[in-house]
Formats: sequence, C-alpha cells, structure tokens
Amino acid sequence: MSGTKRVVVIGGDAAGMSAASQLRRMTAASEVEIVAFERGPRTSYAACGLPYLVEDLVGSPDDLIARTPEQFAERGIDARVHHEVLSIDVDDRTVLVRNLAEGTESVEGWDELVIATGGSGVRPPLPGIDCAEVLQLRTLDDAAEMDRLINAGATSAVVVGAGYIGLEVTEALCARGLAVTTIELADSVMAATLDADIAEPVAQAMRSKGVDLRLGTGVETFITADGHLTAVSAGGAEIPCDFAVLGLGVRPNTSVAAEAGVPVGDTGGIVVDERMHTPIDGIWAAGDCVESSHRITGDRLVVALGTHANKQGRVLGINLAGGDATFPGVLGTAITKFAELEIGRTGLSEREADAAGIPVITSTSSSRTRAGYYPGADEVTTKLTVRRDDGTLLGAQIVGGSGAGKRIDTLATAIWCSMTVDDLSMADLSYAPPFSPVRDPVVLAAGVAARELRGATGG
Amino acid sequence: MSGTKRVVVIGGDAAGMSAASQLRRMTAASEVEIVAFERGPRTSYAACGLPYLVEDLVGSPDDLIARTPEQFAERGIDARVHHEVLSIDVDDRTVLVRNLAEGTESVEGWDELVIATGGSGVRPPLPGIDCAEVLQLRTLDDAAEMDRLINAGATSAVVVGAGYIGLEVTEALCARGLAVTTIELADSVMAATLDADIAEPVAQAMRSKGVDLRLGTGVETFITADGHLTAVSAGGAEIPCDFAVLGLGVRPNTSVAAEAGVPVGDTGGIVVDERMHTPIDGIWAAGDCVESSHRITGDRLVVALGTHANKQGRVLGINLAGGDATFPGVLGTAITKFAELEIGRTGLSEREADAAGIPVITSTSSSRTRAGYYPGADEVTTKLTVRRDDGTLLGAQIVGGSGAGKRIDTLATAIWCSMTVDDLSMADLSYAPPFSPVRDPVVLAAGVAARELRGATGG
Repeated sequence: MSGTKRVVVIGGDAAGMSAASQLRRMTAASEVEIVAFERGPRTSYAACGLPYLVEDLVGSPDDLIARTPEQFAERGIDARVHHEVLSIDVDDRTVLVRNLAEGTESVEGWDELVIATGGSGVRPPLPGIDCAEVLQLRTLDDAAEMDRLINAGATSAVVVGAGYIGLEVTEALCARGLAVTTIELADSVMAATLDADIAEPVAQAMRSKGVDLRLGTGVETFITADGHLTAVSAGGAEIPCDFAVLGLGVRPNTSVAAEAGVPVGDTGGIVVDERMHTPIDGIWAAGDCVESSHRITGDRLVVALGTHANKQGRVLGINLAGGDATFPGVLGTAITKFAELEIGRTGLSEREADAAGIPVITSTSSSRTRAGYYPGADEVTTKLTVRRDDGTLLGAQIVGGSGAGKRIDTLATAIWCSMTVDDLSMADLSYAPPFSPVRDPVVLAAGVAARELRGATGG
Repeated sequence: MSGTKRVVVIGGDAAGMSAASQLRRMTAASEVEIVAFERGPRTSYAACGLPYLVEDLVGSPDDLIARTPEQFAERGIDARVHHEVLSIDVDDRTVLVRNLAEGTESVEGWDELVIATGGSGVRPPLPGIDCAEVLQLRTLDDAAEMDRLINAGATSAVVVGAGYIGLEVTEALCARGLAVTTIELADSVMAATLDADIAEPVAQAMRSKGVDLRLGTGVETFITADGHLTAVSAGGAEIPCDFAVLGLGVRPNTSVAAEAGVPVGDTGGIVVDERMHTPIDGIWAAGDCVESSHRITGDRLVVALGTHANKQGRVLGINLAGGDATFPGVLGTAITKFAELEIGRTGLSEREADAAGIPVITSTSSSRTRAGYYPGADEVTTKLTVRRDDGTLLGAQIVGGSGAGKRIDTLATAIWCSMTVDDLSMADLSYAPPFSPVRDPVVLAAGVAARELRGATGG
C-alpha cells in the first residue's frame, strides 16, 4: 500500500485504546495514522474502580484515569473526546462523527475500523426511572454525583440488583454510613454467576453489615414527588430513600455497528473471530461490545470486564499491525469482595453445567486461609464442579476471608489446562503457616471432590 | 491372610501419622492393627509453626499439636511416644524398640513397616557448637528454650543460615526485640532456591528491619566462656550474642533404615517408588526421610516440607490399605515471608535450569498486588524461567507485598500442566481493583516473557 494507512477507533476506553496503543508500538506514524473517537469527556479510565472512589478509598478521580488524550497524543495517537460516531459507511469506508462540544459533524475516512463502543447499564422502563436520583455507576460523573448527594446529606439509598456492581456499590454506601436497602429479583445474591448455596455467606455478610437485603423482590416503581425520588416500591413495600443506584448489568453498545450491517449475535454482542475481526472486511471489534467464546462449552457470551477488553484490544492491535494473535476465550473468572468477605468464581457453576447438559458432581469443602493457629486464619468455602465421567475440573466458587479470593486463579489455571481433581489434589502448591494450612484449600477441595466422585460413581 | 495384620510405623509426625490415619479410615481394627513409635514426647505437631510460636503469634504451644496420642487411640491407632526404634530386622519382620521413659527394650513384630523417621537439622562439627546456647528450631522444646532465654533477658542473637528457617527465625527474633545478626555463607539469601537477583529485595527487607545481615560469611567458631556462648566468630569478626540459632537445612534420618539394608539414594533420602514403597518387600517410607522426584528434571531430591509429608503419608496409607495411589513428584514450590515481604518460588530457578543443562530465557517484570489506585497496592516482582525452544514455563520466583506470595500457586499449576508463557498470558485470571491490576502480575509476567522470548529467538 502506498501512503499512510488510517485506522479509526470508535471508543476511547480499555479495548479501543489498548488496540491503538498496541498498534502504535508496532507501527510508525508514517505508516499508520490512528484516530480514536470517544463520545465521553475522558479516555481510558478504570470504571471498575468507581465503587472504591465512592467508598473514599481512592485518593482522587484522576487516579482512575490511566491516560489522557494529551498522553495519547505524545505517543502518536489522536484521541478525540466529546466525539460521537453516529454511523459507519462500510462501502465508502467512512464514519460520520459529531463533535459534541461544538455541535458540528464531519465525515472521516478509514482504511481499517475498530469498534470498541463498550456497554451501557441496563435501565428497564420502570415508572420514575428517569428522575435525577436514580443513578448508575458507570462513569466518573456518576461517581461524582453520588458523592455530591452524600455530601449534601443523603442518608439512605436503595441499590437495585445484587450482582457484582450492586454488591460493590452496597459496600461503598455502607462504608459511607448510609442506610442501604439492596433489592434482588433472584432468590440469592450474585445469582448470575454463583450457585445459591455458595452465595448464602455473601448475603449473611451483607446483612451483618446492616444491609436490608431483599431477595426474590422486583422493583415496581421509583416513586417521585416534585420530580425527585422519595421512595422505591418493591415487592409491594415502599422503601423511602434519598437516591437509588441501578446495578442490573451491562448490555453491549452495538446500534451503530448493527445499522452498518456488522453482524450482532444472539447474545447481543458483535460477532468476532478469535483474531477480533468481524465478518466485515477491515472492521474489527473488541471489549464489552463483543461476544466471546466460553472455553468449556464453546457457547458465545458477553462478559463486560476490563481485563478481557484489555487483552482483546492488544490481540486486535497485534493483528492490525500485521501480526498474528488470538484471544482464546473466557472461563467467566471473576472476583470481588464485600467488606472482609472475598468471592471468586471460574468456569461452570452447578447451575451452568446443568444448563449445558454436562453431567457433573459438585463438592463443597471448608478450610482456612492460613494455618489454624496463625493469626487471621479465616474460613474459606470452596465448591467445585467436576465432570462426572472423567473427573475433569469444570468450575469453582470460593467464598472466604482475606486470601481466599485470589485462590480462584489457581483453579482457573487448572480448568484452563483440563486438570482432573485427582491431579490437582496432588499438585505442588505452596505451604507455609501464614499462607495456608498444610493442605491448601485448593488441594483439599480437589481431594474431597475426587473422593466424592469415586463414591458417586463407584470408581 | 488369616488373623489381624500388624502395621508398625516408625515416627509419629506428619508422614507417619497421615499414613496411619489414612490406613485406619480404610480398614477395620479387626483387620489391621496399627502401632506407631515416636521417640519424641509428642505426635503430629506443626514444626513449620515454630518460628511463629517464638514470634508470639501463636496462642499456645498446644495450638501446634494437631493430634495427641490419646486422640489417635480413640481412632484405633496405638501411638507410643518416648519409644525409639533402634533397629529393623527385615528377615524376622521385627523392630527393636526402646522405651525411653522406662529404659526397657522390646521386640515388636510387623507385617508391613512404615519408615517416617523425618529429618534432623544440620549441625556441622564447629568448635563450641554443642554448648547449650547454640539452638535449633525443630521441636516445641527448642521453641520453649528460645522463649526462656528471651524472657530471661537475652537481647542479641546470631542466626546461622539465611534459608527458609533462618529467615523465619530472624523475623521472629526481630519481632521479639532482639538485635539479630544473620550469617550466610552464600552471597545472597535463600540461595538454595532463589536466584540472587530476586533475593536482593529480601536482603533489603531484612536490613531495613535492622538485621545485621552478613552474606558470603561462614561461621568459624562458637566462642564460649565457662561453657556458655558469648560470641560467634564469623568471617574473621567476633559477634557477641546471648544465643545462636542454626538454620543450615535438614538431612533425612536414615541410619536405622540403612543399617537394615533399605536403599538410600545419593541425595541421602530413602529410595521409594511413586507408591511410596521402598525396594524391600513390605517396607514403605514417606516424608522428610525419603527422596522425591522432580517433575521437570526427573532428578531425585529431598524436600523437607510438611505438605509433601502429608500427601505422601496419605498415598502410602491408601496403598497399604490395598488401594492404588501415586505421589506424582514435586516442583520445589515454596513460600515464606519476612515481615511484610512475601516470597514464593516454584519449578526451576535460572541457576537450576542452567545446572540441568536446559536452555532457557528468564524474564523479570514488576507490577502491583492491586490496582495502582487501590489502598495497599504493593510492588511485586516476578521472575520467570522459560524453555527457550518452545516457551514452556519451567519456573517462577515472586517477591512482593501482601497478596504477592500465593500467586506462586497459579504459576505452579501452569508449570504442572506444561503451559507456555504465551498461553498463560491469555489465561482468564481474576480481576478486580482490590485484588489485582487489570493485567494480573502473573498474566503480565507471562506476556513480558513471551515477548522477550520472541525477541531472543527471533520468533
């Protein structure tokens, strides 16, 4: 190709800017021009850190900003905030861009296009949901508004949804001294990713911190007076509050892509191959707006998580630069905490294995995070999902005190490699009293599961 | 076989009693009689916890005792303390046992014999080493004596050796307020298991706590006056102290076995197969007294670690009960801490890979234990050893703040499964700000190593 290739990136956050940065590292500015359009006011900030900003654990909002447009400019990436891409013309290889600050529009050409439009928080069309005090926690502005309300005297809040974000927001608001009611439609917390039995200690931890947790309860109405929220009506009860926060999950932003004919799967995410290329020549996509592949079931799914966005962006950037990299899929590994309780999960829960029609046994074991006699030896409960016919580890869920959560990585690695529980029960994991009992909880859990599997199958 | 089979266990600690307990779970007392002889005053106590007992982190010495002879008796295991096995008669299938409390001897028959004689601390024949103030930390009595000396006014100590036990004893004595000099013959701390570069922050941490760390220094004499220790002469200097502690490693106790003709390998450990059977029919062995096999090199080695003793004991017990289990070998995984600094290692260090003649590259990367903006985000340094020809991960060393150490388990699992660094760099490990940066240090380290490998090999 003669002249400079132009790459346009739609979306200036984790996936898009990882792709841009990777491409920039591998190509000279004279070869490739990179322009990124971000409709919001900022590039590359850590949305996952927002609950901790609200909790006052983060020094300043600026700490969450990984890189500013000026910093990208220094690296030879033209990142333009307040620029929304309104449409893509696949035939002309252009995008129509609106400069939100100036109210102007322009047509920008591209040789290759990266769609990294992210996701948006789910907002069901309930009465009153559009009033100012029904918040989300997706942006720094959302966090600032929550902070403002608390500083202005808010003393009570309703959190809608007890998934990851709902849990983290609940923790933050409790820590700020608010009376918090958390409402969840399912009969257990974190129901999308944890089995109900393993979620029970999480619910207990929430209640022990004073959270009014209402499970099996749906929100009916956000009750307002003079346009301001006064209460949330849920499960037939009216819960007065100063503000509410939605934590109902995230959906991929795909309208611009879909309107241009870029295929979107049944999951709602943009279809990509493992090189992060869409079925349309020259159009790539990554991050919260795409489908990923599940390593065990092969199912397509959408996981909105910065770590995947980051990896997918880098894979995309390498391929865009002429290299060859693949994103190998996900296990659904996740971690969070509520107060002192750490929660990790990976692979298939019992419910997911059942839904996938995979015959499994499950095994739950209890242990300690350290040697029993060492200070801070907290309880840890581990539930494993094991393939019934051959003992392959398919999933793990961990709940426990300090040091419990990150053990999920060992289990995720074992699942990644298709280890059996028998094999894992004999693996050489580290031991010293400040770090684990003589049998690490992971080794113990695998050993118990192996024994139960033999009992269940007569093997 | 008619009648009751009799199993004699020599040694009443982790390996021996794990074997006995496992055998008991799988057999009735009418089938199998189990007698264990322990020359010391206690069964099954956590020797690894002794430094933390000295440090005053453990409530009471009793907390380190996993199970007493009375508790074993309740389970149908006859565990006799103060009973030393003096010799084994392989032809007659007997042992000669001395009751140390009563000064009597008896001949005890066995149908199957378990040798779990453990190890002893290395005590080189240096002048003065036998005086009362040159201690080890192998037993509860050792810990009690150290405690007594400190309570009696000891204010300074010399620790000989900067391996695991030397490090842990140094930490404990510093915490008790003593002035500690730690002497190490090698030019870096933990030289047997850590490469010198990764050991440097450990030495720094020791010095920052006020430890007078003297590397490349050998002890010449324990200087006494009136039979009591007054100073240690090392590297030509005289270091006054109230007591000294030896941390020079552990050697297998094999004399009774060797005298009976049970083969002992070049490593000094008893030869066993992976079912924990010695080459002599009906004689088994496990724990600190046996050789293990290294998973990567296939070399035989002796690793004195409770977690292996425990696993090997259970494998032995299962096989003794007529089952079939194997101990799959070790990676040399280990973990410890010095004050706030956590240290983990697994697989082959650079030095070990070089010694084994395996062409490798190494890669060292720095990261944080949590998201940079989250409180307690400490530095973590990870060094990987990677097979040069195919990128297989062979070893890892980690040094860092809270949460760094146990990440070694993820790396150990990856090595156990022969993962390449490329594969690990894309593994689905958990991410949330309180637990890791968006790229976990393990993923980051693998990615950096993969890139450096491509650079080094032009791949």
